[in-house]
Amino acid sequence: MGALTDVPGVRVAHVTLGGAGDAVRTGVTCVLPAARDLLAAPVTAAVHVVNGYGKPVGLAQVAELGEIETPLVLTSTLAVGAAHEGVVRHLLARHPDLGRPDTVNPVVLECNDGRLNDQRALAVRAEHVAEAIGLAEGRRDGHPVEEGSVGAGHGMVAFGWKGGIGTSSAAVEDGVWRATLGALVLTNMGRPEDLVVHGSRVGMPDADGQGAAGQGPAGQGAAGQGSAKQDAAARQGDGPDTDDAPADGSVIVLLATDAPLDARQLGRLARRAQNGLARTGVVTDHGSGELVVAWTTAQPRHRRDGPWLRPWFTAVADVVEEAVLSSLRHASPVTGRNGLVVERCPWL
Amino acid sequence: MGALTDVPGVRVAHVTLGGAGDAVRTGVTCVLPAARDLLAAPVTAAVHVVNGYGKPVGLAQVAELGEIETPLVLTSTLAVGAAHEGVVRHLLARHPDLGRPDTVNPVVLECNDGRLNDQRALAVRAEHVAEAIGLAEGRRDGHPVEEGSVGAGHGMVAFGWKGGIGTSSAAVEDGVWRATLGALVLTNMGRPEDLVVHGSRVGMPDADGQGAAGQGPAGQGAAGQGSAKQDAAARQGDGPDTDDAPADGSVIVLLATDAPLDARQLGRLARRAQNGLARTGVVTDHGSGELVVAWTTAQPRHRRDGPWLRPWFTAVADVVEEAVLSSLRHASPVTGRNGLVVERCPWL
Amino acid sequence: MGALTDVPGVRVAHVTLGGAGDAVRTGVTCVLPAARDLLAAPVTAAVHVVNGYGKPVGLAQVAELGEIETPLVLTSTLAVGAAHEGVVRHLLARHPDLGRPDTVNPVVLECNDGRLNDQRALAVRAEHVAEAIGLAEGRRDGHPVEEGSVGAGHGMVAFGWKGGIGTSSAAVEDGVWRATLGALVLTNMGRPEDLVVHGSRVGMPDADGQGAAGQGPAGQGAAGQGSAKQDAAARQGDGPDTDDAPADGSVIVLLATDAPLDARQLGRLARRAQNGLARTGVVTDHGSGELVVAWTTAQPRHRRDGPWLRPWFTAVADVVEEAVLSSLRHASPVTGRNGLVVERCPWL
Amino acid sequence: MGALTDVPGVRVAHVTLGGAGDAVRTGVTCVLPAARDLLAAPVTAAVHVVNGYGKPVGLAQVAELGEIETPLVLTSTLAVGAAHEGVVRHLLARHPDLGRPDTVNPVVLECNDGRLNDQRALAVRAEHVAEAIGLAEGRRDGHPVEEGSVGAGHGMVAFGWKGGIGTSSAAVEDGVWRATLGALVLTNMGRPEDLVVHGSRVGMPDADGQGAAGQGPAGQGAAGQGSAKQDAAARQGDGPDTDDAPADGSVIVLLATDAPLDARQLGRLARRAQNGLARTGVVTDHGSGELVVAWTTAQPRHRRDGPWLRPWFTAVADVVEEAVLSSLRHASPVTGRNGLVVERCPWL
Repeated sequence: MGALTDVPGVRVAHVTLGGAGDAVRTGVTCVLPAARDLLAAPVTAAVHVVNGYGKPVGLAQVAELGEIETPLVLTSTLAVGAAHEGVVRHLLARHPDLGRPDTVNPVVLECNDGRLNDQRALAVRAEHVAEAIGLAEGRRDGHPVEEGSVGAGHGMVAFGWKGGIGTSSAAVEDGVWRATLGALVLTNMGRPEDLVVHGSRVGMPDADGQGAAGQGPAGQGAAGQGSAKQDAAARQGDGPDTDDAPADGSVIVLLATDAPLDARQLGRLARRAQNGLARTGVVTDHGSGELVVAWTTAQPRHRRDGPWLRPWFTAVADVVEEAVLSSLRHASPVTGRNGLVVERCPWL
Repeated sequence: MGALTDVPGVRVAHVTLGGAGDAVRTGVTCVLPAARDLLAAPVTAAVHVVNGYGKPVGLAQVAELGEIETPLVLTSTLAVGAAHEGVVRHLLARHPDLGRPDTVNPVVLECNDGRLNDQRALAVRAEHVAEAIGLAEGRRDGHPVEEGSVGAGHGMVAFGWKGGIGTSSAAVEDGVWRATLGALVLTNMGRPEDLVVHGSRVGMPDADGQGAAGQGPAGQGAAGQGSAKQDAAARQGDGPDTDDAPADGSVIVLLATDAPLDARQLGRLARRAQNGLARTGVVTDHGSGELVVAWTTAQPRHRRDGPWLRPWFTAVADVVEEAVLSSLRHASPVTGRNGLVVERCPWL
Repeated sequence: MGALTDVPGVRVAHVTLGGAGDAVRTGVTCVLPAARDLLAAPVTAAVHVVNGYGKPVGLAQVAELGEIETPLVLTSTLAVGAAHEGVVRHLLARHPDLGRPDTVNPVVLECNDGRLNDQRALAVRAEHVAEAIGLAEGRRDGHPVEEGSVGAGHGMVAFGWKGGIGTSSAAVEDGVWRATLGALVLTNMGRPEDLVVHGSRVGMPDADGQGAAGQGPAGQGAAGQGSAKQDAAARQGDGPDTDDAPADGSVIVLLATDAPLDARQLGRLARRAQNGLARTGVVTDHGSGELVVAWTTAQPRHRRDGPWLRPWFTAVADVVEEAVLSSLRHASPVTGRNGLVVERCPWL
Repeated sequence: MGALTDVPGVRVAHVTLGGAGDAVRTGVTCVLPAARDLLAAPVTAAVHVVNGYGKPVGLAQVAELGEIETPLVLTSTLAVGAAHEGVVRHLLARHPDLGRPDTVNPVVLECNDGRLNDQRALAVRAEHVAEAIGLAEGRRDGHPVEEGSVGAGHGMVAFGWKGGIGTSSAAVEDGVWRATLGALVLTNMGRPEDLVVHGSRVGMPDADGQGAAGQGPAGQGAAGQGSAKQDAAARQGDGPDTDDAPADGSVIVLLATDAPLDARQLGRLARRAQNGLARTGVVTDHGSGELVVAWTTAQPRHRRDGPWLRPWFTAVADVVEEAVLSSLRHASPVTGRNGLVVERCPWL
């Protein structure tokens, strides 16, 4: 329940590219970390790399300075260059002195949507990013976030089912601060047999070869090994995509709050995102780049770490778990390149 | 099922200090990472810090060099100095040139057993460590490992129930290598309401204030907040210790294998231990130092990372989850200082 | 003396953009880490972030997997998106299955050439990167490397003087292995008063306001503070650019060898690059992103770390120092946007 | 010039063990990071590992929480266990509730003094640490710090000459804050030929085998390779100890300030210490554990990173360089075990 945008000032917008009958199944999701001129007043932030098999842009500087000074962009793996240029062009248009000589640090995060999307088309262009930023800027506090097969989530596959964008939020009360913690994820990881829904490993085939709830196709436990292979049943659209996770499957986690945590504390929050991911059954596979970006819209205030952090750490796992499940719950089936159909997860 | 000692060459021994009627409830657990002269032939190793709120000794050098050159010692927090000296004295006795000028890097890991154990007694002395090392050296391949309230586990409390030493192992087959992955944990973290057993959050009170299985004491969901406070019901021995996790609660995870992984790859394994911990419900609380040490008894061989790592990563989560549950399953109730009784977890 | 290309298989090529009378003063430098199909057989590699105020692309995956699978590109800060796309387009053209679904991890490193170059022109395009890669592929073992104001070095300023590309190499003999260590740097950091040439702080004004060698302009010790400000003397071309280091000044260090070091050991080498930088007087300023990438063209062989590493560590500092000085020595004066002239350093 | 104690509230005391005719040549140096109850009000702090070949205690928690809650202890490598216990015993005596169940995180740092000191004697005991803490507590703001062959510096050897404790400080003015930056080092690294004094590589033999200043013994460039070997000339006391750096040589750097920097910013300072070390010629040798601890006595205040950090970063390199040279300048010759004499460096 809830959304990243429950944190005042945070905005999200999607640009979805391609559609039915098209080999292009991709898009861009833009997140404004706060409703202000970020170049003048960046948000305090931290990053955490769970599994570095990913192609993020901009994280070194966030780690060093503890701040984000641009919109965040989520997109397809081979599109990170175009997305970077999209943010740069957008900011050059806004800031006439930018580049003379000061520059800027765009943050772009990606997952590989290459099972459904024909990545070779390089469909995402700089202007799509500018469009998504513009859309996001037009939104208001607390606006709803479209989830599932939209924006960067258009072509993503999670646990063999249709994944994509998911979001959630929680109110956190720590004895001193009462604030919101929001999560937004881009899910593109896992195999059918990995998925755990609120403690239940729904995707494990039972004795007669059926999934726990009897809905899975026969043979899902014997998923093929080659990333080029597609499972016939999946292609026919009646079960999960039982192909291997692609070599570059990933999950991106964004965490936002309006509590005045500092960058080091945000880093501690970011490191707990793995707990939420693990609850959904992920094994942090070799090729699953799992990265976390956390920020606050508030000005940090010095407060010693202490047991007051427990509700924050608990909330991180909760909102990440919920956001992952929400990405599955809200996803629509997508037919991609080669006619591969990835279905909506039947367990949610 | 299984034990860390299923990895050939790995040895474990406990020295348990104090007992019934005694305020001392602590001990030492020694793990020999391989059955050879480690100073001459260290094991290849890696470390991972999930939450650095801990007091380990020796990890900086393991991270830098990718090797462990001594027995590993687990013990009580305030005993790490004595444990360090115990390893040093043991090795000085064995190696007449040691210290002139070459030195050695003991690895000591700890949890805070101060709820049951009177840490002020500083009961663990250097000679207990030497004794544990000696015992371990007398063991054979595949020897059984005593679990629960023994050695370093004597005074540990996990999820409000009696924790301590747990172990497990798995056979891993990755297409090229067939080897064993073993885990040994020292559990001293979590609250009753955190515990998840194979997907079931057993410790959550239901509507009438009872635990999921109806065995918990009333009020466990309203656990006190102060670390000095003890819950009367718990003291009477009929429910979990519903006191807060102590400020320095921790969980230590050791992972051993006989596959020729290199230090970087062992680090990737170590970073997946958090997935196994998360499955048991831990929130990686502020004061819960969570540290992982992984090693191989084999000589590393160069092999590119690839999808073959999946069975390893899956096995890490499995053996860590199993070892944590095993620590609860095998623990005996312990009456500690102030008469506090910590019961065996009834859900296992 | 020497060059990165003294390591067999390493290739370097520049594409220089803009020129006299042009506000564009930028370019691309491409480094092929080995003469082979890198997607099929990546080089073993490591990265080190000295100061994360930089905008690199691709480092997270290099750190995780210990390998580089593409040509390396050095360029201007706002061009990293175009450079990324350039590598992607080049590889899509070569590998018909790339992107379906497997992707690739381009490594792009940058410095801010915005004092001389009009970054707002976004002059570097994807095709320039493809051109540079093509040129590099046409070179042979041991080919000479053009240094100074070429390629990515075209618009760079180091210590207030013209910087850019520098390279050097050393033969290393460690008792077992005899191999080459090469460095290539892109220098764009420091102030005039920082520069140290072989121990002599040449840029410090002496009592009469002159530089150590009497050639500097008056007032260089009182460098202006605003990044938009240019020093009149410098603009007239008779002294160093005494303007502040730009907010995004940086230095990139590449280290290559043909010794069979593993990724962890290459990381140890990379962390010594700072010693060589420090010898040239750099203070690792706030806005100076300093990043190191190290790789070997050889297949790693397991060898315990030991005192044999000393000649490697000594050589790292030596080749990095030499490469930085060489970038100054070989630079030509450049007149950039706004007529700013940055002179060749007179002390070298 | 100056000392760590120029930062108000910082105290230093030494306990020196052994002496003429004694194989024990070691000691303890205690640094109080602030003049207050640190358990109640820790100092904000950061750590940086330049080379992890060292045996520090307590750094994981400092890195995680950004604070130090105890006196810092410097000592001999094999004494870190005793030093840990010394801090624990001291604090147990002061805090009657400590250990029930809350614990504490002592920070102990070491270098290997085993060339001069018979480490096998384990001469440093817990009570020496308590004594040093007591002495330090008796000191006042700005007290002078004894340098060279005292306390932990008693048996240390740097660049083949007598090393040990060195200190220095600088006033830093950054446009907003005017404060002090102090350094204290424990030097035990390097070879004669490495040493650079203010840019001059004084220890390099010239053509006739003499040091740059003509004072070194013949043959110092051909230093023996075995750590057990001693050079006859050195033993006779007329030249540097030309033996190899011991396997565990190290240098410890402490940085203190009274400016309200936060933990992340202190980390940035700590990472610049390597620049100061490099200026003295160190190559960060394999066996030279180089670790940095930085703290502020002030309550952190939020201030965005920016060019104002330059005077801080410049000062870090300056005070570290000065402190290293000061350790040599103030050292007295020491005759150690086996009659080895290590002389005072003649170049300072």
